[in-house]
Amino acid sequence: MTAAHSSPMNPLLQGTITSPIVESRSWVENVTFSEDMPLINVSQAAPVDPPPAPMRQALAEAVSNDVSAHLYGPVLGLPELRESVARHCSATYGGTISTGNVGITSGCNQAFCAAISSLAGPGDAVILPAPWYFNHKMWLDMAGIECRVLMCGDDMLPDPQQAAAMIDERVKAIVLVTPNNPTGLEYPDGLVTAFYQLAQQKKISLIIDETYRDFHSASGAPHSLFSDPDWSDTLIQLYSFSKAYRLTGHRVGAIVCSQSRMAEVEKFLDTLTICPNQLGQRGALFGMRHLGNWLARERAEILDRANAMREGFPQLDGWELKGCGAYFAYVSHPFEAPSDQVAKALVEKAAVLPLPGTMFSPRHGEGGTGHAERHMRIAFANVDRAGIDGLFARLAAFSM
Amino acid sequence: MTAAHSSPMNPLLQGTITSPIVESRSWVENVTFSEDMPLINVSQAAPVDPPPAPMRQALAEAVSNDVSAHLYGPVLGLPELRESVARHCSATYGGTISTGNVGITSGCNQAFCAAISSLAGPGDAVILPAPWYFNHKMWLDMAGIECRVLMCGDDMLPDPQQAAAMIDERVKAIVLVTPNNPTGLEYPDGLVTAFYQLAQQKKISLIIDETYRDFHSASGAPHSLFSDPDWSDTLIQLYSFSKAYRLTGHRVGAIVCSQSRMAEVEKFLDTLTICPNQLGQRGALFGMRHLGNWLARERAEILDRANAMREGFPQLDGWELKGCGAYFAYVSHPFEAPSDQVAKALVEKAAVLPLPGTMFSPRHGEGGTGHAERHMRIAFANVDRAGIDGLFARLAAFSM
Repeated sequence: MTAAHSSPMNPLLQGTITSPIVESRSWVENVTFSEDMPLINVSQAAPVDPPPAPMRQALAEAVSNDVSAHLYGPVLGLPELRESVARHCSATYGGTISTGNVGITSGCNQAFCAAISSLAGPGDAVILPAPWYFNHKMWLDMAGIECRVLMCGDDMLPDPQQAAAMIDERVKAIVLVTPNNPTGLEYPDGLVTAFYQLAQQKKISLIIDETYRDFHSASGAPHSLFSDPDWSDTLIQLYSFSKAYRLTGHRVGAIVCSQSRMAEVEKFLDTLTICPNQLGQRGALFGMRHLGNWLARERAEILDRANAMREGFPQLDGWELKGCGAYFAYVSHPFEAPSDQVAKALVEKAAVLPLPGTMFSPRHGEGGTGHAERHMRIAFANVDRAGIDGLFARLAAFSM
Repeated sequence: MTAAHSSPMNPLLQGTITSPIVESRSWVENVTFSEDMPLINVSQAAPVDPPPAPMRQALAEAVSNDVSAHLYGPVLGLPELRESVARHCSATYGGTISTGNVGITSGCNQAFCAAISSLAGPGDAVILPAPWYFNHKMWLDMAGIECRVLMCGDDMLPDPQQAAAMIDERVKAIVLVTPNNPTGLEYPDGLVTAFYQLAQQKKISLIIDETYRDFHSASGAPHSLFSDPDWSDTLIQLYSFSKAYRLTGHRVGAIVCSQSRMAEVEKFLDTLTICPNQLGQRGALFGMRHLGNWLARERAEILDRANAMREGFPQLDGWELKGCGAYFAYVSHPFEAPSDQVAKALVEKAAVLPLPGTMFSPRHGEGGTGHAERHMRIAFANVDRAGIDGLFARLAAFSM
């Protein structure tokens, strides 16, 4: 059964890396951690608790009493949920976003794939700052779209001028993630606006993935792009309900774009999944309608954990905190060995599972500048203050 | 907002048709049907009732008490569900299918997209019999994969010899759907085996979509392909839990293939949706474990409705039943006008919504043989015997 295949394989998919999450799971799968040193898993940006009780109750009621919660629904999602996102977006960002500008997707990864597919085909190119979110890179690779890597500087921010020099007729879009995965950095409005203006001027699209926007440290709009009445000519915004409402297992995200692009996105979503699953959408709608205060408390807790990271990190000898926000800290380590070897050693010796920078950037000699080897992502959102102290103790005691 | 776009659009996606289901919905959206002649909607293959009470209760309990039902799970699905499918498949088809040969997907459409993406990239080709299932055609179109159309003869069956003549080094797979959508035909084991041997000989893959297998009129294995110990070198099987257990709104399907191909499929699924939603998977598992007798009764009812179609159809003047099985009848109409005009007239004059053959086949002059214009799909599964009598009365009274 595992013998060499006679049947065809698509080289584009074969040339795409295995999911880093899947790979990192294999690092801990067969390791037994001792009771006095259990694994501190800071690899994945995912809540480990279920949604709050009122949400679970609402979902249980939908299962029992709402027939339509079990049937096909519109390709672009529940009209009430689309409308709710449109209203929330308009109010938060101070722009005009209508229901027709909003599509619900089976998670935010699918929203990204749909956005890219509406823009670019095989042979086209997309500018992706590195460090990147690995599933973005994977989709471009498997779709046969060239990924033009915009390496961030030591401040971990992408440079619009550098991006400008990379644009030719094959480039169809620039992708930004803010708050960033993996660095945690909140991109300043000025920087986001500079990229927006560049995209506008070059008549390409700006995709802005705001999966972590509910944990932004600023309470107002994180950028002003929607205040441009012509935003939909240039901007595509992506969002996830997974982090805010602990709905990771329900797969619900959103895409905000022009209505003409939405007609193309609809074809893609219909062909891939027919519609987003109904219960997850009902959960997202319940969250938007009833969990505002709960979410505010969640945000305060995450912001406090980010502060704990910022406070403790300077005491770690040789380590440096390069970015911190939302769910993530991006740090440089003090060792000669590349980050993937350091990460594996951390699992074995310190029972800590971070993800190495090599999962987020090209390696040295493959277009990378050495960033990948020196850095690590720590997804701290699930670790409370006491746990973060424990994490620091383990890192301080660790050596290669 | 709806002005001409300055930002790029992907011509492959623009060149893909709008979903026929979305289009046909627009035909009835603004029509008011009279109370004594309500719409008979035979357009979509979808249950209109929720899953049975024990399933709803199990789902409600999972929502309330099972934390993992709300969290990310493995990319390839719940291990217990994969194991259950593997065991069921091995027992039904008399072959060796292991858990590693089974992946759970966000619906069967996604299983198809994953299968194709593991096989073929832009510039490659896949053989698709016509009439086809439209989302199959749409995925090939948007992926930049050439769709080689194998037109069925008047018996609505694809011809392996004709297929053989179409295979060159660019062709990576042949796709079969049995029981067929849209024709309802159950492909004989001999025909399926002939295609399997052809694929084997040419070292390409055979994808067999068995979304409707639970409603096959034969109670045993519908084909013998899995009895070949080397099946996984050639065969990829697709399945949907949506029809059997009324889980359309939950999006759960499956793919069965070699473990080496599954590693590629895993990359695709991870990038697209991270994991299938957890509740739907729990529903599918409950169904497999506890709803065997219930499903047997459902099947008997659907088979009885198919018999009602077969019994009544010969009395309709000028109409002909070309295929009938699972959820579908494929019929030819007696009018000069092409099927899409007939379908629209049926909505307006007879309050019946079938889907025209033009949605399943190339038009005359675009590679079609005239089939598309003469035929119509009637998805009868939701219409009981009395309803089918009513349908016949409306068709008998209808003229263009």
